[in-house]
Amino acid sequence: MHRPTDGGRPPWRASVLTLFPEMFPGPLGLSLVGQALKAGLWSLSLHQIREFGIGRHRAVDDTPAGGGAGMVMRADVLAQAIDNARAADPGLPLLYMSPRGEPLTQARARRLAEGPGAMILAGRFEGIDERVIAGREILEVSIGDYVLSGGELAAMVVLDACVRLLPGVLGAEESLAQESFEDGLLEYPQYTKPREWEGRPTPEVLLSGDHAKIAKWRREEALRVTREKRPDLLEGRDKRR
Amino acid sequence: MHRPTDGGRPPWRASVLTLFPEMFPGPLGLSLVGQALKAGLWSLSLHQIREFGIGRHRAVDDTPAGGGAGMVMRADVLAQAIDNARAADPGLPLLYMSPRGEPLTQARARRLAEGPGAMILAGRFEGIDERVIAGREILEVSIGDYVLSGGELAAMVVLDACVRLLPGVLGAEESLAQESFEDGLLEYPQYTKPREWEGRPTPEVLLSGDHAKIAKWRREEALRVTREKRPDLLEGRDKRR
Repeated sequence: MHRPTDGGRPPWRASVLTLFPEMFPGPLGLSLVGQALKAGLWSLSLHQIREFGIGRHRAVDDTPAGGGAGMVMRADVLAQAIDNARAADPGLPLLYMSPRGEPLTQARARRLAEGPGAMILAGRFEGIDERVIAGREILEVSIGDYVLSGGELAAMVVLDACVRLLPGVLGAEESLAQESFEDGLLEYPQYTKPREWEGRPTPEVLLSGDHAKIAKWRREEALRVTREKRPDLLEGRDKRR
Repeated sequence: MHRPTDGGRPPWRASVLTLFPEMFPGPLGLSLVGQALKAGLWSLSLHQIREFGIGRHRAVDDTPAGGGAGMVMRADVLAQAIDNARAADPGLPLLYMSPRGEPLTQARARRLAEGPGAMILAGRFEGIDERVIAGREILEVSIGDYVLSGGELAAMVVLDACVRLLPGVLGAEESLAQESFEDGLLEYPQYTKPREWEGRPTPEVLLSGDHAKIAKWRREEALRVTREKRPDLLEGRDKRR
């Protein structure tokens, strides 16, 4: 199913460096984001880090300096992989997915989506040699305060959050207009048919047809939900003013 | 490649309700987490929500009460899907992936990993009818402050974070001992060979062989990195004392 691209606009470019290119596009190849990939609204190029590994076994990692468990991905191997990927996909910001990174937020996803694309380094093992981060101008980005078995799922999360914001990706069943974080608040509660379900009614105001009252109720509910669940978002919102 | 299960311990059970079961196991079928799936350390059952859809077209959603863009997943359809999945996979906590949810943290992943498993509802469209959340005792969980095109990637993130904590999943190249969040801090910088790379040396202390000095340096670096990048983690840590 091909949709026209946005006035000849070049596709948003995703470029991923990984030891597991076979994980991609994976979930990103289905549903809306997958349709957008097939339609050429975004492109995905994959770079196998192991091609730049050392020796017969194409080693990409070694033991940590100073001892300790695990293995660390080598700066020289990563730098070669990055330089090669940048030659193929120039002009993209380079993100490294790491719990130590700057948090991914909706605002960051929007900024990335407005740019030409993103190059993402997905690490494995204990992490990567610190020196390559400064040596290759890498921005560390975190999708949340938890540890994953590798950076690939985190990269997919970044790409999904960005791609759905590209013009033409979302269909009629979804919308960007009223959703969490668009105004610094969580989304208000949603209801649909049936009017009553297991003794639970739909709030009267939503059935009133009074659009001003409905808008007011939704605004108040978004504030209430945010205050109850995530007061930190309200604090951050006040600070940003 | 089959590894022995942990003393006959039953597998940790993942159960996912989704409109896109074909996305699974996807990235979770590869690498360490995929090997653990094949080895029976965890199991994955998928439940297609559309099987409980209404009418000839198996509709699972309808327009939002009160108007507005997008579609909302119906409480009655979801409740049937949930009741059916619970009969097949009893005794699991039920999570709904949503930006409005309680944040996924390493501590929450650990608690989930210590339990029998997790049932996860992956939504699509504008969200789900609010009434099913209370009507079916659902815990809303968020992987971060951004919006995805659906809950499937978020469900994979939860499962990956949990499965890697199960006994026997991580190999020698990874470790749980020293990683971000295990002591409320971000991880210290890692280095490996070569000793010097592009004029950037490995910190002398890591080459000293003095284990006490190395441990002290790493501790101080973890504190410094956390203070610089995520002072909020230090505040939370002090509060928890």
